[in-house]
Amino acid sequence: MINTCCRGVDIHTHVVPENFPAYQGRVSGVPWPAMSPAHACHRHVMISGKVFRTVPDTCWSGPGRIIDMDLMGIERQVLSPMPELLGYWLEPQDGAALARHLNVQIAEMVQRHPDRFSGLGAVPLQDMALAIRELEFIVKDLGLAGVEMGTNVNGMPIGSPEFEPFFAAAAEIGAAIFVHPLRPTGMDRLVGPAALEQILAFPCETGLAATSLLTGGILARHPSLRIALSHGGGAFSALAARLNHAWHIFPALQESMAEAPLETSRRLYFDSLVYNHELLRQQIALFGASQTMIGTDYPFVILEKVPVPRIRELGLGLEQERMLLRDNALRWLGLTA
Amino acid sequence: MINTCCRGVDIHTHVVPENFPAYQGRVSGVPWPAMSPAHACHRHVMISGKVFRTVPDTCWSGPGRIIDMDLMGIERQVLSPMPELLGYWLEPQDGAALARHLNVQIAEMVQRHPDRFSGLGAVPLQDMALAIRELEFIVKDLGLAGVEMGTNVNGMPIGSPEFEPFFAAAAEIGAAIFVHPLRPTGMDRLVGPAALEQILAFPCETGLAATSLLTGGILARHPSLRIALSHGGGAFSALAARLNHAWHIFPALQESMAEAPLETSRRLYFDSLVYNHELLRQQIALFGASQTMIGTDYPFVILEKVPVPRIRELGLGLEQERMLLRDNALRWLGLTA
Repeated sequence: MINTCCRGVDIHTHVVPENFPAYQGRVSGVPWPAMSPAHACHRHVMISGKVFRTVPDTCWSGPGRIIDMDLMGIERQVLSPMPELLGYWLEPQDGAALARHLNVQIAEMVQRHPDRFSGLGAVPLQDMALAIRELEFIVKDLGLAGVEMGTNVNGMPIGSPEFEPFFAAAAEIGAAIFVHPLRPTGMDRLVGPAALEQILAFPCETGLAATSLLTGGILARHPSLRIALSHGGGAFSALAARLNHAWHIFPALQESMAEAPLETSRRLYFDSLVYNHELLRQQIALFGASQTMIGTDYPFVILEKVPVPRIRELGLGLEQERMLLRDNALRWLGLTA
Repeated sequence: MINTCCRGVDIHTHVVPENFPAYQGRVSGVPWPAMSPAHACHRHVMISGKVFRTVPDTCWSGPGRIIDMDLMGIERQVLSPMPELLGYWLEPQDGAALARHLNVQIAEMVQRHPDRFSGLGAVPLQDMALAIRELEFIVKDLGLAGVEMGTNVNGMPIGSPEFEPFFAAAAEIGAAIFVHPLRPTGMDRLVGPAALEQILAFPCETGLAATSLLTGGILARHPSLRIALSHGGGAFSALAARLNHAWHIFPALQESMAEAPLETSRRLYFDSLVYNHELLRQQIALFGASQTMIGTDYPFVILEKVPVPRIRELGLGLEQERMLLRDNALRWLGLTA
């Protein structure tokens, strides 16, 4: 038991279900996902007849994940859908059906191992009424901790006024929100292989989405929201510091933001998935040791394999270490006061 | 004299000429700039009949700038055009004519005060032959230190193969290159006033442009290039660390980059214009104390008013302080070995 306090909570891990139901909607040519066999212990995620990604069975196997978690020093994983499955581009009813399937699958994984998993569901943000209905189902019926949301919904950044009802409902119900990039802006600036979408466009997408929560007033109107940004917020640190400077100078910014942006930013949570101790150190210095939590992108190929040593090597002392490894995540999840 | 070694060199300052020649080209409705009177000590930059920006006379007045430089503890300013004047969207011959006017104006300011100013010119990157011709004129005839270039040319990021001849020529001639954002990607993700283009889209644009120099192989093919990124590289730190991690995992990235991206990144230069000491500290830790130089955005409203204290408060010791305040910039400019 002596080491229990030092095992980590990983808030950034993804789930793909082993199977999807056949498409039941009324539209033809819909990018509804399906799974098909691949090589040993893997399956293909098929979208529109093409292999979107080939994924390992740890995407859906609780026992398989727990073996890896023990190796990685992870006490609890927070499960969230592979972002492409959020399906904001589907017809609202189709999107709601896909979200429901994901949510039930994730809830089943959590229910089998409630001491090792927490869950975040999907909501069809292309329709506010359906999204709020699913949010309530996720939290009240399935008992999940909250939701994963994309950085944009069909190109509209999450700080847009259109999403105010969702954030109001999430604040009301006390749901944790995990913001993950998908279908990013900036693709026109990449030179190189397709993987650069996730490597380079994702961090800018996340940084811009996060600033829209400030400039759009979401965080000011709902100070109790517990929002976590993936990949350490991506470009957010650089943007927030520049926005903070500009806020002191431009009256138009002070009109829309009553509080200095860096102050507001310190209410956001961040995962540790920046792959570099200088960046991680800066993130903690800028936003506080109470706001960073482990994130790994497990079980995808880009994952951080040594998340606990990554925190420990910062040499922050036992108290802050424990916050970063575990306590911040439990607070963000709503599992502690 | 005792303080001379501690005055700074500011590599990020902008010039707008007091006047532009009338448009001499053959196209109608061209966004050719003109100046018109504004309130005391200011003029309007007019583009397409509208006020693009109202600017102070320190944009073109050497003596006016020197008064401010003395107040700010700046020994030497590096003058570069206001980026919108780079005019990549003009017909090539028109772009070349506009660049020539800027370059002659900047050279005259430098020639009047060679002990206080260095200059960077504009080249019409919409046409490689004209750009290289102007580069040679800038360096050989006008004696300027190099060029300012935008992060993209009509949407094409600077690491695209199309710009290889320009970089080859700049390496050959030994020109310093200052990369500044303009007409940025990511505008579709902003929620708020128009100023957010410069505040939030600029840093992502610069980060992505800089990574294209790595993923497109420019820095590998021309290791002697002296390229400086404005605004501390914007989002570049976060992108470079993630790219570096991905490079170790994705074979497609190793095929296009022989060297680990963070290693290559340490050949880039960065200005200090990040408005935050945690970010500045991280930038120096990540890329080395030999690669950061003062940048202020003088004389625009967003300027860093206290660039020298910003460096000094880091407490890096006299030797590194001197590098950051002065020596790195002189090396980047080619004024020292």
